Amino acid sequence: MKQILFLLTLSLSIVSFGQTDEETIKRIYDNSLTNGKSYEWLNYLSNQIGGRLSGSLNAERAVQWTKEELEKLGLDKVWLQPVMVPKWVRGNPEYAYIETEPGKVTTVNICALGGSVATPALGTKAKVIEVQGIEELEALGREKIEGKIVFFNRPMQATLINTFESYGGCVNQRYAGAMEAGKYGAVGTIVRSMNLRLDDYPHTGSMSYGDTPVNERIPSAAISTNDAELLSSLLKLNNDIEFYFKQSCRQLKDVLSHNVIGQITGSEFPNEFITVGGHLDSWDLGDGSHDDGAGCVQSMDVLRLLKESGIKPKRSIRVVLFMNEENGLRGGNKYAEVAKQKGENHIFALESDSGGFTPRGFSFDCSDADFNQVLGWKHLFKPYLIHYFEKGGSGADIGPLKNKNIVLAGLRPDTQRYFDHHHAANDTFEHVNKRELELGAATMTSLVYLYDKYGVNPVETRAPIKD
Amino acid sequence: MKQILFLLTLSLSIVSFGQTDEETIKRIYDNSLTNGKSYEWLNYLSNQIGGRLSGSLNAERAVQWTKEELEKLGLDKVWLQPVMVPKWVRGNPEYAYIETEPGKVTTVNICALGGSVATPALGTKAKVIEVQGIEELEALGREKIEGKIVFFNRPMQATLINTFESYGGCVNQRYAGAMEAGKYGAVGTIVRSMNLRLDDYPHTGSMSYGDTPVNERIPSAAISTNDAELLSSLLKLNNDIEFYFKQSCRQLKDVLSHNVIGQITGSEFPNEFITVGGHLDSWDLGDGSHDDGAGCVQSMDVLRLLKESGIKPKRSIRVVLFMNEENGLRGGNKYAEVAKQKGENHIFALESDSGGFTPRGFSFDCSDADFNQVLGWKHLFKPYLIHYFEKGGSGADIGPLKNKNIVLAGLRPDTQRYFDHHHAANDTFEHVNKRELELGAATMTSLVYLYDKYGVNPVETRAPIKD
Repeated sequence: MKQILFLLTLSLSIVSFGQTDEETIKRIYDNSLTNGKSYEWLNYLSNQIGGRLSGSLNAERAVQWTKEELEKLGLDKVWLQPVMVPKWVRGNPEYAYIETEPGKVTTVNICALGGSVATPALGTKAKVIEVQGIEELEALGREKIEGKIVFFNRPMQATLINTFESYGGCVNQRYAGAMEAGKYGAVGTIVRSMNLRLDDYPHTGSMSYGDTPVNERIPSAAISTNDAELLSSLLKLNNDIEFYFKQSCRQLKDVLSHNVIGQITGSEFPNEFITVGGHLDSWDLGDGSHDDGAGCVQSMDVLRLLKESGIKPKRSIRVVLFMNEENGLRGGNKYAEVAKQKGENHIFALESDSGGFTPRGFSFDCSDADFNQVLGWKHLFKPYLIHYFEKGGSGADIGPLKNKNIVLAGLRPDTQRYFDHHHAANDTFEHVNKRELELGAATMTSLVYLYDKYGVNPVETRAPIKD
Repeated sequence: MKQILFLLTLSLSIVSFGQTDEETIKRIYDNSLTNGKSYEWLNYLSNQIGGRLSGSLNAERAVQWTKEELEKLGLDKVWLQPVMVPKWVRGNPEYAYIETEPGKVTTVNICALGGSVATPALGTKAKVIEVQGIEELEALGREKIEGKIVFFNRPMQATLINTFESYGGCVNQRYAGAMEAGKYGAVGTIVRSMNLRLDDYPHTGSMSYGDTPVNERIPSAAISTNDAELLSSLLKLNNDIEFYFKQSCRQLKDVLSHNVIGQITGSEFPNEFITVGGHLDSWDLGDGSHDDGAGCVQSMDVLRLLKESGIKPKRSIRVVLFMNEENGLRGGNKYAEVAKQKGENHIFALESDSGGFTPRGFSFDCSDADFNQVLGWKHLFKPYLIHYFEKGGSGADIGPLKNKNIVLAGLRPDTQRYFDHHHAANDTFEHVNKRELELGAATMTSLVYLYDKYGVNPVETRAPIKD
């Protein structure tokens, strides 16, 4: 018995103390690539549950199922955190056409933007005015816009290597186009899909009316890039063509939903928290595999991989599957609010919400001192071809945790294919590669391991926790 | 007139001398991403021509078509370089099943390996002995192997981050399995497909009988990974199950084919050559989009992008579309042979033959001094997220050019998805992403631009050209 205890102690010592960081990280990657659960989980989430719009039945199924899966992992604590979320429903499939002369129509692919009002029951039909951005509206003025459909057609810029930058340069057309065009008397807006490819998929996404009174809100839809090109070329031939679209989407009352949280409680510093997460809600057109099923299953696997790799965290490690990132960020806000109420000291938070593609590195939102700390770990990731360690944004859901003490980070996968699928019907499981997904999970786990082991540094320069 | 000449001279000067390397490389990337031809070319090569096995009609169509496309670019010279190539034909679609008891069969997905002999006309049926590699054959001996089909089932190792390393650790089963198993009296070999995924696609590829006499050669086929798993699990239940396969492939006489070559002649050092290329032949199951249609169209676009970007090379830049990489390397050998005969001083050669995925960097086969030179350029690639500059292999087709003066390099794209498609029916156009392909072309062009501008360095330490 003594011998057994001795061997047990020895083997635990090897795991805890005998391994270099290089060896531990190798074990994490090996486990993810040979024994990962992320892909199997994503298969279920995408193919058995599917698209998970906030407030939908599918979103609730996803909450229950992920909670059950986390409970199977033997974590110290798994719970649901209540949060009220907006409920927008698409209604019947949208329908749209271009009428080049009376009775001569070409149907085109559109989808309502999330948050849009419906068209009148019989649809909206009007002449079209094409613009390259919101800033053109003022110059055109009410005279040229009133009674028309405004067609926002500024494409994503192909020359930016990081496609999220291209997205950032266009998305205000989608988010604020209807709000702004409405001020000049437009009867609707059509927005070129945020997609670098030319194809037939319309891409939805959130939009806002700001404080526009309800009766002055105009319907807004996205059009596929192929059809945007078509519409633009037809307008060049004849400015008098008309566009028709019909959508029956509605905003209902807020409903109760939940963030899903699992925790391994820290053995030494239980009130120092490391949070890793993605968002569980998705748009409804596809099954939300890249956005953000991938980030959810990777985050779930971070805790499992820590356990599988024999790592006993000193700090409390949480996986948080945030609800309602897409059209409200209610889950992210709620999580930060509760954390603050409870005086939890969150030292590090990591989000994966840029697709399940090959990981290239991380973007860090932190102080220079904290960034220097993490640069000291960069060499540990070289064998895995993870090279991108830069300061920048992190993730929408963890943003509300920001204070001057915390390090926020976002996983940065390869971005080239992301907007081919983003918010569209082709964001589906078969476009996620198993190894790429697993490499992401391992990369996240490795960084969590390092922050758990070393904490944030230098502690003495930090502000008091409850600052 | 004087004024026009002055302006012309001025604008040429700006292009040639006024731009920093950063600016020129930015222009190259911008051109590729907004105005690239590689994707359009690949669409034609893949969808209008298709799989291009050496000696096939499609291979000849690809030779003629790429020559015509290069001629449209206004290069200084475009020509075909004759080369005799082997001609292996697949014959009728292969057929195979596992017979667990008499009359109870499950069909499985196989394909003949390139170079294999046919089975007898009625097929081959025998008991199966599973091994994890060639090295097990000797221990088993003739007694356990004779009359059986040897099933090579060592999978690609999932824990290697570079999937080409996993491939390298398995491919001897495919290449030499039949040659070795035949020595112990096996009647055929079945090889687990070189694929990290579990799916239903069999992956072909080259194999060799070495100097095995023709009448002692045994047929060899690849089996899909799903079916390899099935066969292995059935063998664990019952060692006496039988495997049947039928294939009618044949090796015909060598036929005449060609490398396709285009050249921009250098303005200052016309006898210093920079070669960029891929291989025009492919296997026959898919359309060869990743292997190596991608490398061909990228290489073609290197010369076009140099011109489009206003770069007038000092050295002679050649695109070479090599014939017969897959099952003979005759094109690569011929090109090097002719270059040597003509005393051409090849200073740099770059091959793209690892798929059309997001480029991550280059692998260099060169001296330490030459590697140090290229490391000095690494920072120029950082804005494009190209970070991998390592010593290693280059490309099969340019390998025969190796001498102690030349720098050989291979483009290194992301490898995670490559072997999902390699040599299989799903190596098709829709699996190539336009931006990823174009980024690769721009990355190659940028390195060619630098070698053209600066040459290899330091020249004084080099051996005489005709060494």
